[in-house]
This record gives sequence, structure tokens and C-alpha cells, in this order.
Amino acid sequence: MKRRTPSAPVFVHPQAIVESRRVGKGTRVWAFAHVQEHAVVGADCNLGEHCFVENGAVVGDRVTVKNGVFLWEGMRVADDVFIGPNATFTNDRHPRSPRSRAGKLRYANRQWVAPVILESGCSVGANATVIGPVRLGRRCMVAAGAVVTRDVEAGALVAGNPARLVGRVNARGERQAPRRAGGRRRA
Amino acid sequence: MKRRTPSAPVFVHPQAIVESRRVGKGTRVWAFAHVQEHAVVGADCNLGEHCFVENGAVVGDRVTVKNGVFLWEGMRVADDVFIGPNATFTNDRHPRSPRSRAGKLRYANRQWVAPVILESGCSVGANATVIGPVRLGRRCMVAAGAVVTRDVEAGALVAGNPARLVGRVNARGERQAPRRAGGRRRA
Amino acid sequence: MKRRTPSAPVFVHPQAIVESRRVGKGTRVWAFAHVQEHAVVGADCNLGEHCFVENGAVVGDRVTVKNGVFLWEGMRVADDVFIGPNATFTNDRHPRSPRSRAGKLRYANRQWVAPVILESGCSVGANATVIGPVRLGRRCMVAAGAVVTRDVEAGALVAGNPARLVGRVNARGERQAPRRAGGRRRA
Repeated sequence: MKRRTPSAPVFVHPQAIVESRRVGKGTRVWAFAHVQEHAVVGADCNLGEHCFVENGAVVGDRVTVKNGVFLWEGMRVADDVFIGPNATFTNDRHPRSPRSRAGKLRYANRQWVAPVILESGCSVGANATVIGPVRLGRRCMVAAGAVVTRDVEAGALVAGNPARLVGRVNARGERQAPRRAGGRRRA
Repeated sequence: MKRRTPSAPVFVHPQAIVESRRVGKGTRVWAFAHVQEHAVVGADCNLGEHCFVENGAVVGDRVTVKNGVFLWEGMRVADDVFIGPNATFTNDRHPRSPRSRAGKLRYANRQWVAPVILESGCSVGANATVIGPVRLGRRCMVAAGAVVTRDVEAGALVAGNPARLVGRVNARGERQAPRRAGGRRRA
Repeated sequence: MKRRTPSAPVFVHPQAIVESRRVGKGTRVWAFAHVQEHAVVGADCNLGEHCFVENGAVVGDRVTVKNGVFLWEGMRVADDVFIGPNATFTNDRHPRSPRSRAGKLRYANRQWVAPVILESGCSVGANATVIGPVRLGRRCMVAAGAVVTRDVEAGALVAGNPARLVGRVNARGERQAPRRAGGRRRA
């Protein structure tokens, strides 16, 4: 939320809906995307088509969100994060229809909201599934199609269903030489 | 389809498309969603953004459909069901482009439509894939990111690709103590 | 791109956006879909709702694209291909936010674009993830929910995460009798 580029206004595609007044300078919101009134989005971001940022979600600066991504209440996305197309997050560990009898009890307050923390510079691959509560560490990378069921360490590369540690990546996202035996092998 | 709340009209977001006249009272349809003319949706439902309900799909009462979910011909969704964001269903076991030569033969009649039955109170997790023909039993739960290739028993919790039985859940969606050895371990 | 049906114009839903002039006759583009100016789409295609065809993507004739599919720069989709709902492609092996410091170096030119080739008559199942660079062979079939990490042979059926060869399919998409031992078992 720190950096501001005063020269660049927010770009909102004519077929996008931006109800929040807390969208940073230079951010672009593309067609069929929707930022709700109480969502917060930083500066110089790119929100792809068919995205949704829910009331209560907080997004940092220079974040790239590809098409078809929904950011829910309880999510905090730090600066410089990449989220691939159709990557999907959950903030509810035991979802039931809130309109059902069981659901009315469960959703009577906000205790059900599971936080999802994406630390700075991390990448979430296309069509990955990230199940809250969860923290994705700085500069880690979730491979496309992975299903993340627990925290991911900084710099880790995780893949599979459920996601497991398969290597490490550098700041540019490139895979590093494998670590020696004795290193932790799980995400 | 039974319960009606006469006081609450249907809410249709200005950027949604609802062509069906068979949408129950109190149901809300959000932006960029589309309910086709011959789709049926019950009362007190919530259809999230970017949803699509195709001609021939039937949805019960108090159903919650999160963003990015498409309900096809051949689908029957019972009361009190939860469908997570980007959960994806198929009604065609051997899909080919209907416009191709092979496809024109295959799609000459409706025999290709594989039924998908979601029984009352079940939950389909975010980004799960559910492959028809299939039946998801009452109150079962499909974990986020799971790929369901066969029927799921009532109350079962399934996860993985392909989805396997990993436990049981109660009405509130909470996981129950594991069953004894000798119990069936597969969905 | 060869066949033309001069009698059938392009159909563009009133809530779709088609900026390209290179869309073939008889093609239909449905609600909340977007074809960018420098995308190329052949004749007699069907682009479902919430689809996106990016500048630089090339799509052949008689292609069926179901809802929620995004076709990126670097993709070439041959004739008669089927792409299921929410199937997701990547054209970037090491994604980082292009707005971050690391990203600005990485995305300074187009060398990061990984080609994704879908050969004629192949099918990509619902919610599958296809990671470029990759080639899907003629008439192959990617099962719903599969995560494709390397090339798929013509006529192969692949499934799982990561996707592995599980059989072969014919032109109609039906599974064939398994091959003898000694045959290659991997995609």
C-alpha cells in the first residue's frame, strides 16, 4: 500500500465493476471483473477478466491476478504476488450451504473465516487450489494444478495433490539445484 | 422446490442474465451470471458471479453456488447443497467437438448426456472436478481440488485425484472420528 | 482456417466483446466472453461464456470451447478440438508478477512465452491444467481434472496429477482395449 504513482489513474474497463474507493494508482481492472465496496487493492496491480475481490480482502502493490480468480474475505495478498488463471482459494474449512438449517448455525458469526496469507513475491500457479487457513511464504511457488493443504515455506516449490515440496525457486521463479538428503522434503 | 418465502422477490444483479421464469422466491443471482430459459432454480438460493445454469439443469431450494460454477443439462441439485468456487462438472464421458465429423455422429441425439445427481445437503469443494455419470450422496463432502470419478456415499468425505474416501463428516461438515478397520475405505 | 460457410455470419452475444476482425463465419461467441483484437478464430466455432482469447492466440475451425476457458498468446488450437469447462492453460513456466522488480527483468521481451499446441481433434477435459511448453497430439484426450506436465502422444488418454498414460481413445473419444505389456505406459 506504500508506493503511489500519482501520474497514473486507476483504469476500469467499461464492463468491470469497481465499488471500492480504496484502489491504488496505476491499477487496472479488466472486463467482467468486480471489486466490492469494502475490498482494498494497492497500486500498480493488474486484475484480469472475470476476477472478484470480496469485501474484506486486502491486496498489496504490484500484484498480478490472472483471469477467473476470486479473492475472499480473510485473504491478505502482499506486494508483488502472482496469481495464475483460475487459481482458487477457500476461506471455509467445512463448507455447507449457509441457507440450510446446519448452515444457519455455522455461519451465525464470522468465526468460520479461515485466513489465507500470501506473502510477498510468491506465485500461485494456474488452476491451483489453496485451502485456508494457510500461509504461502515469501517467493514460494505453487505449481499449476497443485492442491495446497498446509503452509508453504519461503522459497519452496510445491506440486501435486496434495501439494508436496519438490524443490526451491529463486526470485525469478527458476528452480534451484536440489537440496541434500536430510533437508526437509515436505512443504 | 417446496418452500416459498412470498415476501422476498428474486434479486437479479443488473449485469446478470435470467431468462428462466422458474426461479424461486428469495433467490439472488449475481453479476455476470446467466440462468437459461429452460433452467429451474428453487427458492432462497444464491448464485454467485460468473455462474451459468444451462437449459435442463434443475436446482433445489437453499442451494449456495459460489463463483465460476456451471450447471449443465443432466444435473439435478437437491436442496441445501453447497458448491464451491470454480467447482466443475461434466455431463459427457467422451467429449469431442460437436462440430467435428466424429462429433456430429456422437451428438445426433441426447444419449450422450450423463446425469449428475447432487443429493441434499452435500458440499462440493472449491475447484473440485466431478465427472458424470455420478451421484453424490446426502451430506457428503468433496474436498477442494478433488477429482470425483465415481459415486460418493452419503456422509463420506473424499479427497485427491482420483478422489478416495478419507473420512466421514457430520451435518455441520466437521470431520468425524475414523471408522474401524474392516470398514469400506473407498468412496 | 480453410472452410467457410458464407451463409452464416458470426454470432456475438450482446454481452460479449469481440474486437478481432479475424473470426470465421458461423462462429458463435457467448455472454461475458472476450476475443481480443489480434486473436484469430476460425469458422464454425463455439466460444462459451466467460471465455477469453488473448492477442496472439490462434484457433482453428469447428473448435468447441466451453465456459471459463482462457486461450493465451503462444497457443495454437487446431481444427476440431474440444476444450472442457474451466480447463486452464499456462504459457509461462516460471510466473512472477511482471510488476515486481524480478518480473520486470523476466518480462522485458517475449522469450518467456511457452508455446501450447493442441493438435487436431484432441480433447481437453473439464478443469484440466495444461502446462506449457507442451504439445497435445492428434485426437488425444486429457481426462477431466488432469494436470499435464509434458507432451501427450496422438490418440493417448492421460489422467491424474501429474497426468500419466492410462489408455487410448478412438476418434469418437471412446476408450480402446489396453495395449500389451511392453507398450509404453507413460504419456
